[in-house]
Amino acid sequence: MSTPANSASRALRIVRTAAELSTAIVQALEGLAPGNSPAALGLVPTMGALHSGHESLVSTAREQNDVLVVSIFVNELQFNDRADFERYPRTLDADIEILARAGADIVFAPEVSTVYPDGRPLVKLDSGALGEKFEGASRPGHFDGMLAVVAKLLHFCMPPASLGVPVAYRAYFGQKDAQQLVLINRMVADLNYPVEIRSVPIIRSAEGLALSSRNQFLTKEQAKAALVIHRALNLVKGRADRHEPLYLEDAAGLFEMEPLVELDYFELVDPRTLQELAFNCQDTPFTGEGLLLVAAKVGKVRLIDNMSLGY
Amino acid sequence: MSTPANSASRALRIVRTAAELSTAIVQALEGLAPGNSPAALGLVPTMGALHSGHESLVSTAREQNDVLVVSIFVNELQFNDRADFERYPRTLDADIEILARAGADIVFAPEVSTVYPDGRPLVKLDSGALGEKFEGASRPGHFDGMLAVVAKLLHFCMPPASLGVPVAYRAYFGQKDAQQLVLINRMVADLNYPVEIRSVPIIRSAEGLALSSRNQFLTKEQAKAALVIHRALNLVKGRADRHEPLYLEDAAGLFEMEPLVELDYFELVDPRTLQELAFNCQDTPFTGEGLLLVAAKVGKVRLIDNMSLGY
Repeated sequence: MSTPANSASRALRIVRTAAELSTAIVQALEGLAPGNSPAALGLVPTMGALHSGHESLVSTAREQNDVLVVSIFVNELQFNDRADFERYPRTLDADIEILARAGADIVFAPEVSTVYPDGRPLVKLDSGALGEKFEGASRPGHFDGMLAVVAKLLHFCMPPASLGVPVAYRAYFGQKDAQQLVLINRMVADLNYPVEIRSVPIIRSAEGLALSSRNQFLTKEQAKAALVIHRALNLVKGRADRHEPLYLEDAAGLFEMEPLVELDYFELVDPRTLQELAFNCQDTPFTGEGLLLVAAKVGKVRLIDNMSLGY
Repeated sequence: MSTPANSASRALRIVRTAAELSTAIVQALEGLAPGNSPAALGLVPTMGALHSGHESLVSTAREQNDVLVVSIFVNELQFNDRADFERYPRTLDADIEILARAGADIVFAPEVSTVYPDGRPLVKLDSGALGEKFEGASRPGHFDGMLAVVAKLLHFCMPPASLGVPVAYRAYFGQKDAQQLVLINRMVADLNYPVEIRSVPIIRSAEGLALSSRNQFLTKEQAKAALVIHRALNLVKGRADRHEPLYLEDAAGLFEMEPLVELDYFELVDPRTLQELAFNCQDTPFTGEGLLLVAAKVGKVRLIDNMSLGY
């Protein structure tokens, strides 16, 4: 792609319906300088409540694409807990300000009636065994609901079928939701969606806490205690980098010293299949590729994090 | 769309891989006369073993589109019975001859490794309650497997995302597989696929037997006995047309007089939701819209048929 136009010159368009979105996408693509071939359209799906983690997604997508669409939709289907859905922060005005500054072209903020005009879908996505483990174990139905809306958004925002200048299509997801990313990649492969999924690294606070819209529900004391997650990941990562045996149980041990933090799981898995790696924690140094997954509860707030190991 | 080019002048391209298919679709679209706007691409998904029923689908799609793709793939996932999958007729050479005569532009006949490169999909389509009744009741998993391949084919054959002359995209399915058609329409709506589903009426033999690739497994005597299906549908349809009460049990009664034919179900349903219509068979004339669904076994061969009632 060519160099993106100066973001200051872009006008952010906010659209609510599928028809407005299509028109806005076509106009934005047509407005590109001629010779912009192949053009590229990037989509960043979000549930709003944007923080620096999202800004990193948006800024990466901004750099890599000519036209940038950010969707904001709090998807009830992926909340297994109604109260969690209701208290999920809705900050549309602040989100739009952030996205205008970040140079997005189009914000797609649909109503529920646009996304689910007939109520809950009758034909559903089934994330199968991949969606039942780890986060799926404590959030039944979460990943099926997430896939339901991503499957729709990928179609809503797809550049139009036509004949002329090709348009590359990419969608961006954060690596923080590692299981979500694996499932989306799997869905795109299993349904042959014509889109390229790109992922963006986790953004952390200076102290190491992975950014999440849930962090705002932590007290200062809880936020400090939650740093054990990063310490545990780093402990194992350091051993992997030094080609030492990993001794995952030492990481779990760190959590026992933090009474405010209740560990749910700390696992080493295959980064593509989420299969637990039957890793011998005795005297064998780690080789190959792995992904450390961790989830812990701090008060009522569930936090997840992960780190790649690999050579 | 413009008048299709003379079918005699078309060269049928047979492609096996996704890359070959994309190239063939782009070349066929680019080969259209200029000013052909909007262009239209039609897809007819089949499992081969083409008969006059398919020819009608293909010929309708040929008339309505500039570029016509027919896919041929015997999808193991939709066979709940391995033996049924194995004996399903594979007649690729004869199919290609029929499609060349019918003026198709592209035959997409992928290998299993193109459609399912990683084996069975991990993220699946779930047809839910709609897929469990009627045909789903006797063929567990059938509709999920059917949706899995249709979801892929709709993406494989989608005209490319680009900027220029718009391309309309349609996929064609026969009304004979009524439950399949309802589920595909539902999937397209629930996942917001950018495709228009068009359906084509049932084709029958002169005697009234709905054409099916399974009919070739019937003896002459069985084929004659199977005509009771059409007689039963016509009996009820006639009453509906004359605004009489339907008395569905009379239709079921006809089957009792045919010892070679074992009725599975004969139901009146809502044509969009397949909800059984709580129809009062006493003295109330039928009003509204309905779909009669029937399935019966003749020897080892399961036959389905249907007929619309409505005003």
